[in-house]
Amino acid sequence: MSCKLGPPLETQGTKLGNGCSSDTLSQTITLFLIVKCRMKKKLFLDVDTGVDDAHAIMMALAAPDVEILGITCCHGNTSLDNALKNTLRVLKVCNRLDIPVYRGCAEPMIARKRHAGDFHGKDGLGDVPDPDPPSPELLKKKAVQALIKTVNENPGEVTLVATAPLTNLAVAVLLAPNFPKKLKALYIMGGNTDSRGNTTVCGEFNFVADPEAAYIVLDRYTCPTYIATWEFSCRNSLPWSFCDVLFAQDTDKARFMEKISRHTRQMAQTERYQKEVVGESAFNTCDAYALAAAIDDDLVTESEEVAVTVELEGTYTRGMMAVDYMGLLKKKHKAVIMKKVDLERFKQMLMNSLK
Amino acid sequence: MSCKLGPPLETQGTKLGNGCSSDTLSQTITLFLIVKCRMKKKLFLDVDTGVDDAHAIMMALAAPDVEILGITCCHGNTSLDNALKNTLRVLKVCNRLDIPVYRGCAEPMIARKRHAGDFHGKDGLGDVPDPDPPSPELLKKKAVQALIKTVNENPGEVTLVATAPLTNLAVAVLLAPNFPKKLKALYIMGGNTDSRGNTTVCGEFNFVADPEAAYIVLDRYTCPTYIATWEFSCRNSLPWSFCDVLFAQDTDKARFMEKISRHTRQMAQTERYQKEVVGESAFNTCDAYALAAAIDDDLVTESEEVAVTVELEGTYTRGMMAVDYMGLLKKKHKAVIMKKVDLERFKQMLMNSLK
Amino acid sequence: MSCKLGPPLETQGTKLGNGCSSDTLSQTITLFLIVKCRMKKKLFLDVDTGVDDAHAIMMALAAPDVEILGITCCHGNTSLDNALKNTLRVLKVCNRLDIPVYRGCAEPMIARKRHAGDFHGKDGLGDVPDPDPPSPELLKKKAVQALIKTVNENPGEVTLVATAPLTNLAVAVLLAPNFPKKLKALYIMGGNTDSRGNTTVCGEFNFVADPEAAYIVLDRYTCPTYIATWEFSCRNSLPWSFCDVLFAQDTDKARFMEKISRHTRQMAQTERYQKEVVGESAFNTCDAYALAAAIDDDLVTESEEVAVTVELEGTYTRGMMAVDYMGLLKKKHKAVIMKKVDLERFKQMLMNSLK
Amino acid sequence: MSCKLGPPLETQGTKLGNGCSSDTLSQTITLFLIVKCRMKKKLFLDVDTGVDDAHAIMMALAAPDVEILGITCCHGNTSLDNALKNTLRVLKVCNRLDIPVYRGCAEPMIARKRHAGDFHGKDGLGDVPDPDPPSPELLKKKAVQALIKTVNENPGEVTLVATAPLTNLAVAVLLAPNFPKKLKALYIMGGNTDSRGNTTVCGEFNFVADPEAAYIVLDRYTCPTYIATWEFSCRNSLPWSFCDVLFAQDTDKARFMEKISRHTRQMAQTERYQKEVVGESAFNTCDAYALAAAIDDDLVTESEEVAVTVELEGTYTRGMMAVDYMGLLKKKHKAVIMKKVDLERFKQMLMNSLK
Repeated sequence: MSCKLGPPLETQGTKLGNGCSSDTLSQTITLFLIVKCRMKKKLFLDVDTGVDDAHAIMMALAAPDVEILGITCCHGNTSLDNALKNTLRVLKVCNRLDIPVYRGCAEPMIARKRHAGDFHGKDGLGDVPDPDPPSPELLKKKAVQALIKTVNENPGEVTLVATAPLTNLAVAVLLAPNFPKKLKALYIMGGNTDSRGNTTVCGEFNFVADPEAAYIVLDRYTCPTYIATWEFSCRNSLPWSFCDVLFAQDTDKARFMEKISRHTRQMAQTERYQKEVVGESAFNTCDAYALAAAIDDDLVTESEEVAVTVELEGTYTRGMMAVDYMGLLKKKHKAVIMKKVDLERFKQMLMNSLK
Repeated sequence: MSCKLGPPLETQGTKLGNGCSSDTLSQTITLFLIVKCRMKKKLFLDVDTGVDDAHAIMMALAAPDVEILGITCCHGNTSLDNALKNTLRVLKVCNRLDIPVYRGCAEPMIARKRHAGDFHGKDGLGDVPDPDPPSPELLKKKAVQALIKTVNENPGEVTLVATAPLTNLAVAVLLAPNFPKKLKALYIMGGNTDSRGNTTVCGEFNFVADPEAAYIVLDRYTCPTYIATWEFSCRNSLPWSFCDVLFAQDTDKARFMEKISRHTRQMAQTERYQKEVVGESAFNTCDAYALAAAIDDDLVTESEEVAVTVELEGTYTRGMMAVDYMGLLKKKHKAVIMKKVDLERFKQMLMNSLK
Repeated sequence: MSCKLGPPLETQGTKLGNGCSSDTLSQTITLFLIVKCRMKKKLFLDVDTGVDDAHAIMMALAAPDVEILGITCCHGNTSLDNALKNTLRVLKVCNRLDIPVYRGCAEPMIARKRHAGDFHGKDGLGDVPDPDPPSPELLKKKAVQALIKTVNENPGEVTLVATAPLTNLAVAVLLAPNFPKKLKALYIMGGNTDSRGNTTVCGEFNFVADPEAAYIVLDRYTCPTYIATWEFSCRNSLPWSFCDVLFAQDTDKARFMEKISRHTRQMAQTERYQKEVVGESAFNTCDAYALAAAIDDDLVTESEEVAVTVELEGTYTRGMMAVDYMGLLKKKHKAVIMKKVDLERFKQMLMNSLK
Repeated sequence: MSCKLGPPLETQGTKLGNGCSSDTLSQTITLFLIVKCRMKKKLFLDVDTGVDDAHAIMMALAAPDVEILGITCCHGNTSLDNALKNTLRVLKVCNRLDIPVYRGCAEPMIARKRHAGDFHGKDGLGDVPDPDPPSPELLKKKAVQALIKTVNENPGEVTLVATAPLTNLAVAVLLAPNFPKKLKALYIMGGNTDSRGNTTVCGEFNFVADPEAAYIVLDRYTCPTYIATWEFSCRNSLPWSFCDVLFAQDTDKARFMEKISRHTRQMAQTERYQKEVVGESAFNTCDAYALAAAIDDDLVTESEEVAVTVELEGTYTRGMMAVDYMGLLKKKHKAVIMKKVDLERFKQMLMNSLK
């Protein structure tokens, strides 16, 4: 059996056994393992670790039935080196430095590089001191090749969750046009449905940060694709009061999260940010929606299936996701655009992620 | 006193008078006339008369406190010649051929000409026989000059209602950059707020039919500007059952309207059209919203004020209205985007328009 | 006979006559006048008077067989007000303030306004003191209407020479789509053939200053059209030594020209300008080529006839003239692109213009 | 000594030797080998084998001092599979099937796929029967990885000659941003200098076939870069009479070349093609210029060094090379644009290639 089992399962295994014939026990365990193995979701994450990517990673690590096969980093909220460093910091707090982290693309394919530095802080994680910072220089393994190799080795099993500009994913499919067919599913945080920009007049950050990459991914990843857009995350954001409860948990993870979130929380109160938001300002940890949807099939309660693409040429709309309700693009592949989540479920997942 | 008075007022005047000294009476009448005159709204319409323009014109004609100073025609739903002919047909049914009709632009500034022929019928009014068709060839007076002249002669008093592609308005402001300042207000049917296209992937018909004109008008008409967008009209459309009641009135106007509406009503049931619509398919007489808002200040119950412009370059978004919620365009002039109307009020106006 | 006769003709008339019967004389004169009238070229100029427009105007004024029906001014090398003032200054030096000057468009249709201030000087004419400046505020007559009216009154007779951004011409054709058919010919200074930019990477100043206007003019002016492009003027420029001879003439006109040209001559030596130039830096009075070609059919010795349009969307190429050698645009109307002029002839015209 | 020596050298080695002391001989040979090794050019070719790519490959194979490390194929003149097959056919005729051929990108990054089928024939090599066609299906090795690996193993030594759309090169640099620094030089056939299109109004085939790839390559390949543009090849084309002499050589290679060239020769006489050509129609084997320049430093007699980029957005200019003579792009890296070649030298190289 080739499926890797996480630590909780092995522990459980040792608790079984007294008073059973070893044969029956062995059969039971085998059955249990098969079932467990089928249920275990294999995730591969592509991140540009800022504050909400940190939430997403911690949520994945906390999920009992999830295995993270690897994490590729990309430019985006912050520089590639910061994204690598931040990912390692998150894994360290969670005591999971065993998960492989890969070095991805340091800049967009064609667009001018842009960072969301003023929102996530210069270092991408709220600019709080880190007494023992990790060394991303040591991370040499290449993201694109690792992604392709991992998917090829686990055909039909890997769910890819992308919460960064889509440069790594685009380069991967240019290099290996057939590998997306072997993905179980792709979950994206990015794009917008109603031309509500948070970065340019009509553009959302992740897509604007590399419009060509977003275009290529939406065009060539013909696996089941689920998109958590900017408007969706705004419309499903949580009250700030929940944020207080979330961070007040007495754990190292909660203290870490509280600390790195201070800066973005302040930013979210500014007039500039209020204007970006669709509806009222609230606690909107965008990337975590994509991750949560990837690991819990019951999270999304409303969605629509429609062909999408990315505008590459506009003055105000470059990088905007275009939703083809009329079917003018004649695209066979449709994406699932998330509309509503079960908020109680989402809150519980967030709470668990910091336990 | 230079203000023209419509027939209802004069009738009312003759009802006054018994038992009053002629001096007092005269003063009362004068005062009444002044007040009335101030209240009388001077409209100038710019139309591409298809079915919903016909609704809008008839609504304006039926309003007791409204004077139509002129109607300019433009290419759009149908050819310029059809639009002229259709406008005359509507005026004829309403017995108001005294209103001047002007010949405007036959094609967009730069864009390829496109008509909405399949929706409004080849002749723009549902392709029903007209035993005594008007002769638009006789209409030689130029729209752009008439519009400028009328506004200059009535400074601060004219409300311009534009329900066609904005070519005429754009050429007018290119020719006379200062004339929009003399408008009381501009009401536009066109554009979209949520990138929901009804003609291209992200574009609404009137704006897509002449994107440069729409850009110029939103940029240079710095008078109070109110926009009835595609999504707004969809979200404020009426049940088809109301349509039955509306057309069932026992008047020539209602019979005319019912007849010319048959084709579009059928079209509205088609799968293609269902996909254009935001929300459920319903009775959506777009142009009438702009007109109704122009003549009744209490119609619109929810709106937002925000700077807008038009995307000129996109592959999927050319002609799309871009809404600058973040203030990135640094535009001083903001438009009022209609969000909700008092539907009972609107229904009453539609009912009255066919009485 | 409606043709206006300039002063030289009347003078010549009085020299005839001794020893002829009055009848024969009268017939001879009539014949002579008809011939002369046919030969007399009616020009209408559209300018943004900087230094080279000044050259062009003076060349037109000096030509014996040319009548200038009017001059419309446009934004461009300098502001509209400066262009008006400068045009009056040129007419004054030439003692021809009788020629009507009209106020045109102060800004481009859609493009951001840009001036060539650093090249032509802040006032557009080299920033030399003018003790008795004219008052352009008095010029109220509208350019677009004057142009249309003049052409309508002289059908088939007017040669329009446009040496500014083409805003005035574009607005005129939008307003009166049929008037270009009544032009005898259109001569344009603007555009480029080889993607050699002098303002943006691939764009020539006049076209880049209003790309939409240039597009509209090349699309809708279906009269015979002759274009003096940037590369053409560079490749037919004159040695600086000729410039010395030209300005050394002992006339007020030459002194005026020498004075206003000092600034641009200095600019032409700068490294920045050297890079704009195609080939070696030399005396290149661009606008004068278009004017000279318009008044002397033998000036251009090599040309090609090909359909042209203007790129509106590019990052580096917006405003660039696109030359359709392959016939992909399926345009019926072709423009004559000038390639070479008879330089001796051109020099003589320049010399005469300052006499 | 790690440098590979081609067969002619070893043969020459055995011819030396009589009457020399073995020590001296050995020293002489060593010296000779070192010199020879230094002179031996290591080429890597990226092709979309149509007729002119075939010329280029054969020219490289015939050059005495050149080693071809590998050939990557790309979509372009024909489909990827045809390009692979055609490359094998050329190698077979030249008896050099030992050279590794790699499978590259089958379609452009973002642009719609287009082939030059009508010019090069449906199979890309003139549609002549091939009794024993090679099987490109067997070619599984990936082009991008092979290119990167080869360059990494020969740092500073590889000259890359690209005569196809630049998709393979673009993906390679996205995957390995630093590898172009290890190239000795890059020679490209593609792009244009004077906006003379041969595929779209202003676009050359190779660049138009993948504009984003061309943009990325011109932006990120900061090694010495030499470009043989469309206009350059037209202006340095050869008389048809030379073609007759070239193909009349009594060799298998010449007969092969004559056969596969018949179709393109016919096409070159058509009216459509005559319009593409800059100047007179003549024998223009574009790709061979880039290859010839790469192997003979004395071939190019005139060139200019200037920053270049690619227009991505225009209606008529998408894919056009933009030449930044004015330095507006502030690019540090400049490309060498070829202007003139020594035609006698070029003819000799062509003659030798079929011997």
